[in-house]
Parts: sequence; C-alpha cells; structure tokens
Amino acid sequence: MSHLRLDPLSGEWVVVAARRMRRPLTHSAAACPFCPAPPGADAATRAASEAPDAAYDVAVFENRFPALGGEADPLGGLPAGAAAAPAGGRAEVVLYAPQHDTHLGELPERRVRLLVEVWSQRTLALEADPGVACVFVFENRGHDAGQTIDHPHGQIYGYPWVPPRIAREAEVAQRHRAWEGQCLQCALLRRDEALGERVVDAEGDWVALVPFAPRFPSEVHLVPRRHLGALPDLDAAEVTALARLLRRTVRRYDGLYGTPLPYMMGVYQRPRALAQAGLWHLRLAFYPVQRAAGRLKYLASSESGAGVFLLDASPEDMAAALRAVRL
Amino acid sequence: MSHLRLDPLSGEWVVVAARRMRRPLTHSAAACPFCPAPPGADAATRAASEAPDAAYDVAVFENRFPALGGEADPLGGLPAGAAAAPAGGRAEVVLYAPQHDTHLGELPERRVRLLVEVWSQRTLALEADPGVACVFVFENRGHDAGQTIDHPHGQIYGYPWVPPRIAREAEVAQRHRAWEGQCLQCALLRRDEALGERVVDAEGDWVALVPFAPRFPSEVHLVPRRHLGALPDLDAAEVTALARLLRRTVRRYDGLYGTPLPYMMGVYQRPRALAQAGLWHLRLAFYPVQRAAGRLKYLASSESGAGVFLLDASPEDMAAALRAVRL
Repeated sequence: MSHLRLDPLSGEWVVVAARRMRRPLTHSAAACPFCPAPPGADAATRAASEAPDAAYDVAVFENRFPALGGEADPLGGLPAGAAAAPAGGRAEVVLYAPQHDTHLGELPERRVRLLVEVWSQRTLALEADPGVACVFVFENRGHDAGQTIDHPHGQIYGYPWVPPRIAREAEVAQRHRAWEGQCLQCALLRRDEALGERVVDAEGDWVALVPFAPRFPSEVHLVPRRHLGALPDLDAAEVTALARLLRRTVRRYDGLYGTPLPYMMGVYQRPRALAQAGLWHLRLAFYPVQRAAGRLKYLASSESGAGVFLLDASPEDMAAALRAVRL
Repeated sequence: MSHLRLDPLSGEWVVVAARRMRRPLTHSAAACPFCPAPPGADAATRAASEAPDAAYDVAVFENRFPALGGEADPLGGLPAGAAAAPAGGRAEVVLYAPQHDTHLGELPERRVRLLVEVWSQRTLALEADPGVACVFVFENRGHDAGQTIDHPHGQIYGYPWVPPRIAREAEVAQRHRAWEGQCLQCALLRRDEALGERVVDAEGDWVALVPFAPRFPSEVHLVPRRHLGALPDLDAAEVTALARLLRRTVRRYDGLYGTPLPYMMGVYQRPRALAQAGLWHLRLAFYPVQRAAGRLKYLASSESGAGVFLLDASPEDMAAALRAVRL
C-alpha cells in the first residue's frame, strides 16, 4: 500500500504511504487498539484490539498501517525517467506490556531483558527476508516525538535499502578503518571514557554517554565496549547490562525535568550486507525533543532545510545534568 | 558565542550555541521585541525593541542571539583528535513589516518585491564576508515550525561551510551534468511542466510545483525556468514574478485547511564557490509541517534517526488540492 520514490535532486528515496493518513491517533486508554480486549468482551471489541488476548510480556505483530511492505501501490503513470519502486521491506509493532500506563524505565529488568532478546530475534527474522537490507529498531515516546498510539510500544522497520544516515556512517567508518586500521567507535569510546566528562553511566560492558557533537539536546548513546555490529551478537551478560542501562537511562530522562521526557530511540545495527565485514559498531541512540523543561526543540529550517543542527546547550553540561539525576 | 563541532561518526558539523537557550520566546504582541517602540516610549522600552523606530518596509539586523558568528566560545579542554572551530558565519533577522499581525501572503506585492530585493542584496553582502561559504535565506512560520517570536520575519544564515543538504545536491547535480551534459533541475522542470499533474501555479518565468518525491506533506518548490544559481541573478521581471508567486503560494497554503499553515521556507542558492560553475539551479522550497488539518507531521525516528522520510499523501493529490484552493 506504499511505494518508494527517488528524489532526483538529493538521490535519496522517500516512502509514499498514502493509506497511513487513515491510521488511528489515540491518546486515551479507552479506545487504545494496543490494549487487550477486556475479559468477556464481544467479538467486535476483540477484533478491534491488535493485542493478544492473554497476558503477555512482549508482543510483536505486523503494523496494520505499514509504511513499508504490504502490497505495493500501482506505479502506473510515472513520468519518464522517474525512479520508483514497490516499497517492500517490513514494518512491525512491538508492545512492551499489556498495561497502558507504563514505560521502559518502569518495566522490571527481566521484562526489558526479554524485550532486547525479542529485538535480536526479530532482527534475524527480518534479515531472512531478501527484501530487507537494514533492520532499524526504534521507539517514538510521547506525542511530541510523534507517538500516535499512547501505549508503551516500539517499532521495527526492515528497510529495503540502507537508510541515508546509516549509509553515511558506514562510509565514514570504512574510511577511518582504511586510514587508521581500527574501528572509529572503539577509538571514540576509549577517548570519551578516559576523558570522562561526557560519560553519564555505565553497566557491565556498556557505556552511556553524551556524544561530542550531538544533534539533539540531552542526546545519549549507549555503546558496548566490545566491538560488535548488531543485537544478535550480544552475549547473555551484555543483554542484561543493556537492559539495566536502558531502564536507568529512561529514568534519568524522566528525572531531568521531573516529567516524562519525549524522545526518539533508535538501534543502529550494521546493514545486512556488512554483517561479515566487522566494520560497524553497534549503538543505541536516544534523541530527546525538549531543549529545556517544557520547551520543544524544533527541527526548523536550518535542520530540516539545510541539514545543519543547532544545539542550545553544551554537551558537557548536559552530561553533568544527567549524571546528577537521582535514580 | 557559539562554536562548531565535527560529529566524527557522520562527518557533519553541528553548531553549539549555548547562549541561545536564553533567547526570548514571545508569542504575544505586548512583549514583542520585533515590534517598534510606540511613539513617545521611554528609553528602556525603545532599547528593548530591536525594530527601527520609524515606519519601514523591510528591516535587517544581526540576530541578537546568533547561532553563527559573534565571538567564539573558548575551545579549551577539547579531547585530543576532536575537531571544533569558532562558529564564524553570520546570522541576520529580516522583519517583513512593522505590523505584528501580517504575513507574506497579505503584504502588498510591492513589499514582497522589496523583500526579494533585500534577500538578494544581503546574499551579496554576506558573501563578501570571507567567513561565509553559503547563504541560506529562510523563514520558520508558526510555533509548530519553530518560530520563537511571533512577528512576521525571516532569517538569513551565512554558513561558514556548505551545509550537508546543499553539498549533497551539488554532488548530484554535478554528476548529472557530467553524464547528461545538462542541468538536472532544467530537465526536471521541463518534464514536470509537460506532465502537468504536480504543477500548482506559474507566474512569468517561475513555476510552483509539488516535487516528484517530496519529504514534507504539501511541499512546494518555486523554480525559475531560466537556469540561474542565486537570487542576485534574477532580472526585474523575475523578481516581480517571484513576489507574486510567493504571495499566492502562502495564500494557497492558508486556504488548504482554512487556517494559517505552519511552514518552513528556504532559498536554495549555489554555494559561493560554485558561483562561476553554472552548476546550480536556484529554487525556493516550502516545507509545511501539517500532514492534514490540525495534524502535525513529526520528524520521528525514521526521519530523524535513519534519514528516511515517510509521506502520508500522494504528491499528485496534494498538487490537485493546492490547485483547487480559491485565492
């Protein structure tokens, strides 16, 4: 129900998914399609819920209004020379809990651990689809971060091509390794840990830090010390440590201004084609969309139009403020 | 008061302007720093206004809270190997009118014509600064598009380097010319005009159209038929035609959902270093931030995290809806 178009001016693909305009926007528990139907509900109520009937820890299903995958729009009537394609790819929803009012920071550690394992399994499952080139696990939390259904959940996209931002970072990483003979992220992490001033937290072999040149206020990266490219490469201890660090990072954010901080979170994994190259270094990145208590950071003309990000606070100050939050 | 940092992972510069956190956010006429002080106002009131005392048609001055230019933050204490630089560059504010409650679509044609001439003059003036590599004229209209002071105005940035989006398009244009021997935008415009279905409006030698693969809902590009690279290259008839098309485009937007549409608008001019190459084709681009009446388009994880834009409406339908607006 969607298709891809190549923007000839930038050489980048966009996804046209006109059917998504009809997707529900629900910010109340009463009409939430991600809440389980109550016990004894009639057939219509059960059908309206996309959640499993029974109690569950984590649930994954295909997005009912997918941006990627599904049947393609017909591509007739394109101008000569235009490049378009069926969207292909995959779009899944990951419910974190049956409860409507909870979040990553509140879930018990064992549940977050299970969530990380589900992300890993779905990464492998989506990569088995030949139409998927790169798996991107993400969460939009809060209305201001684009969350359309107000129930704790994330999403997984299996992009049918390598997204521009990941392609760009892979190029930079490849150049660095060719010149310096080592992984760029490994070197950055050693430097940032030695320096300390932007490190926010650490757990096991994972470090949480504000990067040197963030694009978003209070941006935090979670980076494993071990050089690995994707979630399925984590060992059991690393999964546990990541789950702990995820929970604490969200609690830190919510303590920063004393209110749930709207954020985007993405898992940066190597594209499938780079699985053997050992080039990519896994990370999770949080992009909060507030620049101060109650003040949104807008991606205005400089960011959206020119691609230049303006940061209103020093990364070192932000790291200190996040460290100082009482958990 | 700001500095640049190179993001080592993406190779892109970000601007750190911590002092901007203190800039005013005023959405009322009472405290507007861009309204002229009333006649007979005391010295403090006059000093608080950044606008000229007298009546004026268009006013330009340095941004009091600049993201670019001004004195640089001290760069001491950087980690070894990190790349940072004084921000350099320029940041100007352009007031469209002394009146607080007006906009581009309402101003008389002669005033918009003058505004275009001012943009041209400031482009030349900022390019005379050796610290400026690329001049970007833009407007953020409406709170949802990041407008912080609720008075009709735009801004001009003189970026000290070529912004990533413009660098990317210049690469694509160069490759196209090398392979095809012609300007990419000239070819696209001929094709789109012949096809007609995404053309919204035209005036003199300017065409307003929804591009084949937009990133924003109801995105419109204003493109001159003549191959030229920057605003100062326009002749008098082209300036007049652009002014008319600008006014009508904003009125069309405001008629689309019957309410002022928040948008970003940017003028894409060739970087100074390409002034002689004849490679670039000037355009203005409007990026509205609503995907339907009263519904915002969020740049959520796919857009902000992966660089993949999802469009909820077909470009052809959007063009038809914009054409159908009664002016």
